[in-house]
Amino acid sequence: MLKTPAIVLNVKTYAQAVGNKSLEIAKIMDKVGKETGISMAIAVQATDIKLVSDNLSIPVYAEHIDPIKPGSHTGWTLPESVKDAGAVGTLINHSEHRLKLADIDICIKRAKELKLDHIVCSNNVETSKAIATLKPDFVAVEPPELIGGDISVTTADPDIVKNSVEAVRKIDSSVKVLCGAGVKNGNDVKKAVELGSEGVLLASGIVKADDKEKVIRDLASGLL
Amino acid sequence: MLKTPAIVLNVKTYAQAVGNKSLEIAKIMDKVGKETGISMAIAVQATDIKLVSDNLSIPVYAEHIDPIKPGSHTGWTLPESVKDAGAVGTLINHSEHRLKLADIDICIKRAKELKLDHIVCSNNVETSKAIATLKPDFVAVEPPELIGGDISVTTADPDIVKNSVEAVRKIDSSVKVLCGAGVKNGNDVKKAVELGSEGVLLASGIVKADDKEKVIRDLASGLL
Amino acid sequence: MLKTPAIVLNVKTYAQAVGNKSLEIAKIMDKVGKETGISMAIAVQATDIKLVSDNLSIPVYAEHIDPIKPGSHTGWTLPESVKDAGAVGTLINHSEHRLKLADIDICIKRAKELKLDHIVCSNNVETSKAIATLKPDFVAVEPPELIGGDISVTTADPDIVKNSVEAVRKIDSSVKVLCGAGVKNGNDVKKAVELGSEGVLLASGIVKADDKEKVIRDLASGLL
Amino acid sequence: MLKTPAIVLNVKTYAQAVGNKSLEIAKIMDKVGKETGISMAIAVQATDIKLVSDNLSIPVYAEHIDPIKPGSHTGWTLPESVKDAGAVGTLINHSEHRLKLADIDICIKRAKELKLDHIVCSNNVETSKAIATLKPDFVAVEPPELIGGDISVTTADPDIVKNSVEAVRKIDSSVKVLCGAGVKNGNDVKKAVELGSEGVLLASGIVKADDKEKVIRDLASGLL
Repeated sequence: MLKTPAIVLNVKTYAQAVGNKSLEIAKIMDKVGKETGISMAIAVQATDIKLVSDNLSIPVYAEHIDPIKPGSHTGWTLPESVKDAGAVGTLINHSEHRLKLADIDICIKRAKELKLDHIVCSNNVETSKAIATLKPDFVAVEPPELIGGDISVTTADPDIVKNSVEAVRKIDSSVKVLCGAGVKNGNDVKKAVELGSEGVLLASGIVKADDKEKVIRDLASGLL
Repeated sequence: MLKTPAIVLNVKTYAQAVGNKSLEIAKIMDKVGKETGISMAIAVQATDIKLVSDNLSIPVYAEHIDPIKPGSHTGWTLPESVKDAGAVGTLINHSEHRLKLADIDICIKRAKELKLDHIVCSNNVETSKAIATLKPDFVAVEPPELIGGDISVTTADPDIVKNSVEAVRKIDSSVKVLCGAGVKNGNDVKKAVELGSEGVLLASGIVKADDKEKVIRDLASGLL
Repeated sequence: MLKTPAIVLNVKTYAQAVGNKSLEIAKIMDKVGKETGISMAIAVQATDIKLVSDNLSIPVYAEHIDPIKPGSHTGWTLPESVKDAGAVGTLINHSEHRLKLADIDICIKRAKELKLDHIVCSNNVETSKAIATLKPDFVAVEPPELIGGDISVTTADPDIVKNSVEAVRKIDSSVKVLCGAGVKNGNDVKKAVELGSEGVLLASGIVKADDKEKVIRDLASGLL
Repeated sequence: MLKTPAIVLNVKTYAQAVGNKSLEIAKIMDKVGKETGISMAIAVQATDIKLVSDNLSIPVYAEHIDPIKPGSHTGWTLPESVKDAGAVGTLINHSEHRLKLADIDICIKRAKELKLDHIVCSNNVETSKAIATLKPDFVAVEPPELIGGDISVTTADPDIVKNSVEAVRKIDSSVKVLCGAGVKNGNDVKKAVELGSEGVLLASGIVKADDKEKVIRDLASGLL
């Protein structure tokens, strides 16, 4: 499983992270991760999983899996297929791709069955707790209103991180908590860990940066 | 655009068509297509588009695109990304992945903007007609109740094909019609063309066959 | 069927239109409609259909029906039930409640089977055309970006109305066109008819008005 | 809050429970409930809430509420409106109407805010537990594969009931558990309580019965 504390990048479907561009970002993370010893992972679009995982040793995650088994599910994301393409993990229930509760349960079970690491996103303390009962590897709490914004969750709403950590721990201390939304620099990462989380999930902070390496090094510095 | 008449395979998320297995199926189609001169295409999972298109010259389609532009859409299928991975076309609104009308409209516009061939699936004559007004490259009519079944739509319900062809032609004669559901052999393909369609969309008939090459050759024979 | 030209109010789920408040609004429309001879209808929440239709003669519509037949569909809106409660018609595919194409087809067929008038909403000329092929009673074109806004579609984008009317007429001249979004006064209604539509579908213009009777009278004046 | 143990009927959208037919069923339950002292409630379609609650004293529930506040939500089910129509409670996340986790959270909060009793449905022990963390009044565990079937969950899968009761109690002992699926007679109800639940949620067992009163009396006998 992903070593923690960790920095997990979700490249979403940003124009700056399609195909070879996702590979370029992953290369920088891979390099900085190796140099600094900081644990990093990258979640890329289904189309790019193989490209990135074939060429690099950084852990590659899918951005999503659907609650399905092999069969007649045209155009949906089969857990077996992201694994086969080289993903070692997956996001589940991202704020931009929310699932029904019964389907989160299925996705977690499918991920476990395939030994895919899984980070299940929540939007507040209550849903963090609910997800924790399903025993995922990680819960990543991200207040939707702060996603893509300028202020880090660790500054704008530190309590949501602290309280999620506490609530999840009380449900199941083996479930790790990440936090995200607005995370942009090393201070944000440092604060995230101080609040009890095991790292951050971020997106635009890296993907939209002009000097991505500088940002990634700065983020890593928060864990040194 | 895809030369017609054509045989289009949708491998869905069948266990028999994940990763290298989709490449193996595509290789046979590529070979038989070249030998016979019959136009063929294969729609594969997003994870496998690059694998197949990098290695073969058969036209590769996505099984689905989402009605989005680049941006914050974690885990959804960006049209730009399937194109970047090597797809030259896409299915839209497959019976197992139906879209809202307003989103079919967006997907067709996005496919045109990116010069992606697009086969928009319909479930009856009425929706074939409705889709035709949106001027897609292809409408593929597939009665959902016959999909995956033992009897070809061309035998079980030839009128749905014939009437879709007529209805679509009346709306816009530049829109081509495919048909699908239960298609398994050369006779079914031959009949599909006799009913006025420009070919077939099929899935389990090939994917679940033990001797895939034999089935593909038989299908092709229907167009010779 | 609803006499045209007509003014159709959709009260949505506004706080100002729950329960007896929807009845109060309907009473004013009923009164002004009778006095002026202008055809009016009101679409209310499922919970309020019986209340309004039992007490008034103004045609009452449902705001939505689901694409279902009687059976196991807990919490969905059965067409038979809105009819039984007193609705004589229904909206379908409102911009805030969009349906899959195959389900619009089913809803229209179910409405016809039950002799429920039906106004199917579209978001642009293309989807107006697609819907027209399904032969509904009405297509109501409403650009989503103008809904709830301050400028009437008839001023902000008269072409969408004019072109929808023309496109629909070309597909099926028996399908009537309404228009909506931002409609607030008699001039907007007058303009709607001049652009070729058979009336307007509106919501906040009436529901959020302090003096609802004044607004309704003003709207009616556009058709006198 | 609903007195327990209780028998809760969900009439779904069965043809046998539209309009006055739902009132007739509710009348029998009301009568039997009063005679026997057994706590009963009925969940009816949104269109029928007012009809039933205006005429009877049996607690009336909505079958569903949407995760919305008053505003622009055409055709969705506003919690305020089911309350205004006379509902004292609501089902949430029924197996036939599943919600995203974040939306279950919102629905429960909205129900509490409006003092609506709420029975949140789960499909297995895991989701029962997850829902319990959200502190609803009731969790009703119903294995989807047994719903509408001939064998009661209490016979077919007693462990799912027992284990849900235990799991929920461990999370929050103030949350009550109901069970459902295939429940048809007094023995099933008796068994449900013996397994630790506070009663049953059922549908076809009553709605499709020829002699509804006989069935309701038999069900009640399980709690005497």
